[in-house]
Amino acid sequence: MPKIKITLPDGSVREYKKGITAGDIAFDIGKKLGEDALIARINGKLKDLFIPINEDSALQIITYKDKEGIEVFRHSTAHLLAHAVVELFPEAKPTIGPAVEEGFYYDFGVVYHFTPEDLVKIEQRMHEIVKKDCKVERIDMTESDAKRIFRSNKYKIELVEEFHKAKMPISAYRQGNFIDLCRGPHIADIGKINAFKLTKVAAAYWRSDPKNDQLQRIYGISFPEKGMLDAHLKQIEEAEKRDHRKLGKELEWFNFFEDSPGAPFFYPKGTIIYNQLINFIREEYKKRGYDEVVTPLLYEKSLWVTSGHWEHFQEHMFILESEGKEYALKPMNCPSHVLIYKTKSRSYRDLPYRIADFASLHRNELSGVLSGLTRVRKMSQDDAHIFITPEQIEEEIFRVLDFTNYIYKEVFDFEYSVELSTRPEKFMGNINDWNKAEEALKKALEKKEIKYEIKSGEGAFYGPKVDYHIKDAIGRSWQLATIQLDFQLPERFDATYVGADNSKHIVVMIHRALLGSIERFIGILVEHYAGRLPLWLAPAQARILTVADRFESYANKVKEKFEKNNLRIEADFRAESVGYKVREAQAQKIPLILTVGEKEEKNGTVALRTLDNKVYFDVKIDDLLKKAVKNIEERKVRFEL
Amino acid sequence: MPKIKITLPDGSVREYKKGITAGDIAFDIGKKLGEDALIARINGKLKDLFIPINEDSALQIITYKDKEGIEVFRHSTAHLLAHAVVELFPEAKPTIGPAVEEGFYYDFGVVYHFTPEDLVKIEQRMHEIVKKDCKVERIDMTESDAKRIFRSNKYKIELVEEFHKAKMPISAYRQGNFIDLCRGPHIADIGKINAFKLTKVAAAYWRSDPKNDQLQRIYGISFPEKGMLDAHLKQIEEAEKRDHRKLGKELEWFNFFEDSPGAPFFYPKGTIIYNQLINFIREEYKKRGYDEVVTPLLYEKSLWVTSGHWEHFQEHMFILESEGKEYALKPMNCPSHVLIYKTKSRSYRDLPYRIADFASLHRNELSGVLSGLTRVRKMSQDDAHIFITPEQIEEEIFRVLDFTNYIYKEVFDFEYSVELSTRPEKFMGNINDWNKAEEALKKALEKKEIKYEIKSGEGAFYGPKVDYHIKDAIGRSWQLATIQLDFQLPERFDATYVGADNSKHIVVMIHRALLGSIERFIGILVEHYAGRLPLWLAPAQARILTVADRFESYANKVKEKFEKNNLRIEADFRAESVGYKVREAQAQKIPLILTVGEKEEKNGTVALRTLDNKVYFDVKIDDLLKKAVKNIEERKVRFEL
Repeated sequence: MPKIKITLPDGSVREYKKGITAGDIAFDIGKKLGEDALIARINGKLKDLFIPINEDSALQIITYKDKEGIEVFRHSTAHLLAHAVVELFPEAKPTIGPAVEEGFYYDFGVVYHFTPEDLVKIEQRMHEIVKKDCKVERIDMTESDAKRIFRSNKYKIELVEEFHKAKMPISAYRQGNFIDLCRGPHIADIGKINAFKLTKVAAAYWRSDPKNDQLQRIYGISFPEKGMLDAHLKQIEEAEKRDHRKLGKELEWFNFFEDSPGAPFFYPKGTIIYNQLINFIREEYKKRGYDEVVTPLLYEKSLWVTSGHWEHFQEHMFILESEGKEYALKPMNCPSHVLIYKTKSRSYRDLPYRIADFASLHRNELSGVLSGLTRVRKMSQDDAHIFITPEQIEEEIFRVLDFTNYIYKEVFDFEYSVELSTRPEKFMGNINDWNKAEEALKKALEKKEIKYEIKSGEGAFYGPKVDYHIKDAIGRSWQLATIQLDFQLPERFDATYVGADNSKHIVVMIHRALLGSIERFIGILVEHYAGRLPLWLAPAQARILTVADRFESYANKVKEKFEKNNLRIEADFRAESVGYKVREAQAQKIPLILTVGEKEEKNGTVALRTLDNKVYFDVKIDDLLKKAVKNIEERKVRFEL
Repeated sequence: MPKIKITLPDGSVREYKKGITAGDIAFDIGKKLGEDALIARINGKLKDLFIPINEDSALQIITYKDKEGIEVFRHSTAHLLAHAVVELFPEAKPTIGPAVEEGFYYDFGVVYHFTPEDLVKIEQRMHEIVKKDCKVERIDMTESDAKRIFRSNKYKIELVEEFHKAKMPISAYRQGNFIDLCRGPHIADIGKINAFKLTKVAAAYWRSDPKNDQLQRIYGISFPEKGMLDAHLKQIEEAEKRDHRKLGKELEWFNFFEDSPGAPFFYPKGTIIYNQLINFIREEYKKRGYDEVVTPLLYEKSLWVTSGHWEHFQEHMFILESEGKEYALKPMNCPSHVLIYKTKSRSYRDLPYRIADFASLHRNELSGVLSGLTRVRKMSQDDAHIFITPEQIEEEIFRVLDFTNYIYKEVFDFEYSVELSTRPEKFMGNINDWNKAEEALKKALEKKEIKYEIKSGEGAFYGPKVDYHIKDAIGRSWQLATIQLDFQLPERFDATYVGADNSKHIVVMIHRALLGSIERFIGILVEHYAGRLPLWLAPAQARILTVADRFESYANKVKEKFEKNNLRIEADFRAESVGYKVREAQAQKIPLILTVGEKEEKNGTVALRTLDNKVYFDVKIDDLLKKAVKNIEERKVRFEL
């Protein structure tokens, strides 16, 4: 039997007999890998595990840990779903069933509307099919074979004709007695689909066109292990409870109106959070040598042509006309800051020059993708641009990392991970500058002892960048801070400085937003803390409740003391039970719930209930105030007496 | 001789013989009035003083104190200018010469370009003509007469033909040997034009159309008394020195770029002023029960249709399209706040509800009328809307007046005057509500002991209003705060409250902006104080200068102390002379200029120079700091040690 050479991702080479499958090689490498294997990348192409390999090849075994593995796993579950549906509803015609962001779906041509009870039955049948431990088989076929096999399904016939016309190969996958038109690859054994759930039914149209047949779309999610599904469902349940859109409305913090899609209204309480975040960043700016500016929002087309936005970002900008000229609402602050930089001649001794801006930014996102505070059309960023010489890159990046670390670690106590994205294939500038810049970024990260992953080739075309991803309280990951080097924009605007050599050089720019957009950051904070914000951010920091009417005057004295210390305190002196009033204050996520009655008035104290539901009796007012003020000044995440 | 009855503005009636002139009646009433009389209003129409009156009439003598008097006076000076020009430059063809905001101009068809020296000669000739004490004569004429008289002036011929076509009467005015086509009226005796100045020459086009002949436009200003001209020229000179556009650029506080017409860039120093003003207003909001909100800038057309802006304000809005829908950038905050008001059911017990907003507002002003910070396309107002019941009008207006008075009188120490504008002819709502509202406004003004002038019929169509006009340091008047009652917008949006009677009523709205727009207010402040801002607003509050290098370490210690007390202090340790460094700091309008040398280091003191150029030697640091901090906290206009 002739031998072939298989090169693995770590560079090691193994010899196998010709015709071996990737599935067998996986088991040969290790039992665990064999069991986890879903598909394979052979010479750069994704393939089924059961395809014989007949020549020397580079091989990577793909498991559920890989993005491509998850996709194929989900897509295979969609086949499994269709398999169950046609068994239970023979009149339903499978159309297409892709993997999507949240799991997978399959669209069926069927007049009947699936009910929630049907979903339970279908799930049940899927389990039964899986138990049979069906092997999956790939069948390459001619157009006429395909047309014969799928003769009773007009949707598949339409697809077959299309593939034929486009000269694409036609293939199908079979498991048991179910066969589906599919390009593949697929997992070789649907027995690996151990955990899944059908989540909802929705109406859809063939090819998303309302002029075509209406279809029934069934959504689902699947995992290789039951524990993963449970964790996922729990996360979704928890996420729904924390949904900032829901909490924002319930707590009267913020909301949206149809009159202005994607542009949040922050109510008085939400505005307190908004302004507190800006105050916090402003204080840091003062300490860290940033200067704030106030800039226009509308700029003439010519500016956007110079900056490149007209060419690359036009579809995301709101464009209007006045006196025969075109203007666009700014989606980013960078060009405004370059204009300010250029108002006078700058020497290398004037750098770094750091300018910060909270201007409203507008992005013309499709209304379909708008989502609460996390995907908006109008926002403000804690945006700053730093102008530096190439020699200053390392030190200035170090400062920015320090600033970011302060916000994420010391103030918000987030777990975070960092990615360094390097030169992409299409890049601007010269390789030498890029190499130096990437080196400087690495050095700064290492000096700051920050662990980072390199995303090779994923930098922006104008420069390398460092991105921060935080993990929230229920394990979801959010991309937040971004720190980007830019060689391009200063070149386009001819933004220069006079160097020590007395001649002009193009300046280097750092784009950086640490919270990101204030709007999005608030959305994430609300979900992370499930509305129980740190004391310094809480719209109402305290609420004082009376046990009975006669303690109102004492309660008012306590309230005044809090107000004198600049605490935001509300009063609830209604003739309701204390239990009722406490529950309401808790529902309002108020960090310090103070109750006063006979004993408290006599002792000059309050009873305190914190958001973690700890109760402290007979707390001295001055003690509490001192600790609260300190907690706020230090911007602590939690309050402890 | 038959008699006629003349009714004067005070209602008194006098009898004169038929054919008497208004000029004679003025002298009959009093010598001063006779001398001051310029024209007359006879039965509502403006007429020359020398026109015989042949029937019972209502008569008002118009002098330079009246708006119409100023206009005719200036227009007559334009005739005088043309008179002089045609005597000196017989080839120059007079075209038109109106009175304008800043004085008057006259456009001449002439190839020659007038020089500054020519202006002096023309002025000289105007004085000579005036000395001849020319009487002015009106000549009504036919089209053919007019065409004959003006046969050598194609522009006048064009006008004559136009008047004829429009069936308008044709008339001319003659003084000495100069005759000009003119509708009138005119002052009867150009000897009254005692003081005038030609200010500049500019190019213009016949009928403002660049396709027509280019003309030479001469601008001027005139007054009945020399003292008034001197005061005016001095004011202009002083205004030029204080011009906020000039100072803003020189001091690097703010500036404009062609890329965004009418939208100021506030540089770091200007942003300090901007944010200080907002902080000030925010502090007051907190004390006075206002809640701040953050709202979108772009709203769909339907909102503007409901609010009435689409019909009445469309030409001033920036309008754009997205996904087939029309949106406009908000020019005002009112509809945003009504949306917030309407998010829940409000009881009379929840009112007044005060919401404030610093959102960016955009108004599509013609680029030709844009002027520095005082006429912009983008601005933020210290804008708030107050929702009240009709019964709360008086008390709430009283509060707003108190707030306004605090800002204008106690903080900025402006002289101001107040106008109450009442129901116009075209009004919305019922007269009863209007009367009650006007009564409530009057009562509030009187309770607050504020003197006010009633501008009868000058209210907005939606409600009566109170306007504040301040007088700046060089005597110019600026309209600033406006407080407007509105019955209309709540009606249009069906914004209601549940009354004590348990049924729904339309709420009343107060629109109020006290600084007006932050941008415009800063422009006015800069001119009022000639850049020498109060300590609390000054971008750099102090600058410390060293007499020699060796005092740098002491100077740094002083600087740190200032910084610890949150003062904005700069350092100038350059090896320049103290005199030079002081002059630079003064040019930068820095309120506290500190100098340190041998004696100061030894004594732990500084030498202090304030903006009024007072010098204090050997000032104890702690003393100075204490006084500065207090001055800032109290937002004093001037600093005194």
